[in-house]
Amino acid sequence: MSRGRPTISISLGDPGGIGPEVLVRALRDRAVRASARYAVHGSSAAMHRAAEATRTEPFWWRVDARSALGDTVGSHDVVLFDTDPELAEQGAEPVFHAAPTKLGGALSFRWVESAIADAQRPESDPRHARAVVTGPISKEAWSLAGKGRWPGHTELFADRFKSKRFAMMFVGARLRVVLATAHVPLMDVRNHLTIGAVHTAIDLGAEACRRLGIKRPRVGVAGLNPHAGEKGLLGDEEERLITPAIELAVRQGVDAHGPYPGDTIFNTALQGRFDLVVAMYHDQGLIPVKLLERDLAVNTTLGLPVVRTSPDHGTAFDIAGTGKADPGSMTSAIRLAAKLSVPAGVSERV
Amino acid sequence: MSRGRPTISISLGDPGGIGPEVLVRALRDRAVRASARYAVHGSSAAMHRAAEATRTEPFWWRVDARSALGDTVGSHDVVLFDTDPELAEQGAEPVFHAAPTKLGGALSFRWVESAIADAQRPESDPRHARAVVTGPISKEAWSLAGKGRWPGHTELFADRFKSKRFAMMFVGARLRVVLATAHVPLMDVRNHLTIGAVHTAIDLGAEACRRLGIKRPRVGVAGLNPHAGEKGLLGDEEERLITPAIELAVRQGVDAHGPYPGDTIFNTALQGRFDLVVAMYHDQGLIPVKLLERDLAVNTTLGLPVVRTSPDHGTAFDIAGTGKADPGSMTSAIRLAAKLSVPAGVSERV
Repeated sequence: MSRGRPTISISLGDPGGIGPEVLVRALRDRAVRASARYAVHGSSAAMHRAAEATRTEPFWWRVDARSALGDTVGSHDVVLFDTDPELAEQGAEPVFHAAPTKLGGALSFRWVESAIADAQRPESDPRHARAVVTGPISKEAWSLAGKGRWPGHTELFADRFKSKRFAMMFVGARLRVVLATAHVPLMDVRNHLTIGAVHTAIDLGAEACRRLGIKRPRVGVAGLNPHAGEKGLLGDEEERLITPAIELAVRQGVDAHGPYPGDTIFNTALQGRFDLVVAMYHDQGLIPVKLLERDLAVNTTLGLPVVRTSPDHGTAFDIAGTGKADPGSMTSAIRLAAKLSVPAGVSERV
Repeated sequence: MSRGRPTISISLGDPGGIGPEVLVRALRDRAVRASARYAVHGSSAAMHRAAEATRTEPFWWRVDARSALGDTVGSHDVVLFDTDPELAEQGAEPVFHAAPTKLGGALSFRWVESAIADAQRPESDPRHARAVVTGPISKEAWSLAGKGRWPGHTELFADRFKSKRFAMMFVGARLRVVLATAHVPLMDVRNHLTIGAVHTAIDLGAEACRRLGIKRPRVGVAGLNPHAGEKGLLGDEEERLITPAIELAVRQGVDAHGPYPGDTIFNTALQGRFDLVVAMYHDQGLIPVKLLERDLAVNTTLGLPVVRTSPDHGTAFDIAGTGKADPGSMTSAIRLAAKLSVPAGVSERV
């Protein structure tokens, strides 16, 4: 593989959702195709249906997912590793409904695993991928397929790469947000929010900002409680966990500040004061991301030995198959994956 | 008092904050003055300093707060019940610093109590107030003054009016949000979020919308957990508490829907689908309100026998005294108080 042009492995997402059509629309852009080579794990039937819905001339080279032919991927821009033949042997049809189904869950899970396997191949392997982009999956479908123990891609990637220090980050045009805790019931945040969890989010988030070209990122850290605990009157996690984590990061050279009230820190960031906001839990970070970026932000998992990004929207079964889905977030996810796939060592630590 | 023109009682807020100047700027507008009569509880020194900072000709009639002269309030648009003489008798000067102080806390607390007392007078009393507007206070100052047990105005009003069913609502130009829980540490929400608390927020919020002229308000209810619990995979409060509360409200005729994920429901509301969003906790509701309305929303307490509104910003000690503070939220708070002060019986229940 060319050193300058990384291979990005892509899982198609739920075949009944909008994943296939946003991918087809994103990759039909020659400029996007020029920045990397792509190994797509998915279904030929789903890709063709998406091509029809979006009036796109198929541009990919299809191989049976089980075939060794895939090793020649390097000579093509986009190779589809197709699981339809395997499905046919099992007597099933590649017919996908725009709803959570066991078949959609099983296939979308399997495609993620295949994409991860590409990233785990040695660098010398022609199929080695430097980054993984995941299409939107239905957690309900994963649950129907017996994969309900995974709350999302993030946790699956962390497990498969044995990463203990990882974090979810959202990169939008106006806001960058990293989460200290993610897919846990809100009242269980007490069991997950530790000095270490907050520090990891600050540390990995600042490092990601540096890889994005911000030399000395200014990091704002949110409080957990209303008014960031109002000096202890409304909760003690700020004093007990968040402030010590900030102090630790500062001692290590990170320009971190806070904790600030959750309901004002995002306005402060929008005024240009912070390059990154560290949120304590899912909705605290995602409410502003969704309000300001709509569905156009990119979700990236930090702390993995591989780059992983995904669009920040779901399967949108209600509009799947119409070709109306906006490919903006998928395009941004692919571009961010390419940007973060710089060879190790190029990124600087402060 | 004229039946058509309600009396609104106003507490000045922390005398060292921006309360006095935003009040002076809001009330110097003759159109605002024409819609009600105003009894301001505060300090003459603070009001005059605010008038100077905002280049305003004093327009109020001052009486000693202890004087019976206040009973003639009806003949003036704005009467200031001045506590400076009392302060002088205690050997203190009405000099207020732009910081949380014991004096600022004691006075601002006392002014709220006086404003509440006006609202508790019988309707036949010339000083009876139909609504209370509260200026911004510093909770740290209240704490210094020994009033730290009150997390905010809302809880104080609920106590003084013996209201067991009350809720905080925010009314902005683009969004109306009511909270099921408010000033509690986030991890204590588990002890406050009940079917009753969620139902109260839906019910009182819908009633407030009707008083604002929305005949059949469409109410969207947020979930507590990430992705509204993902059908039980990420928490059970949605099934256990929120859905039963919605069902109860629906049986009572409220057009309520949900629970929806906290990170998408506000976008849905902005698209015009809901007139009101019910948030489960402080930051879930306040993050979108602050992002979309900046500091221009109005905070109103529902469930009291009196109307209570306040601007949705703090004391802003950093800019106090400069005359730069935007009076928009105070003006909106006064206008909303006047609008909600329609005589009982005029508002309809569905």
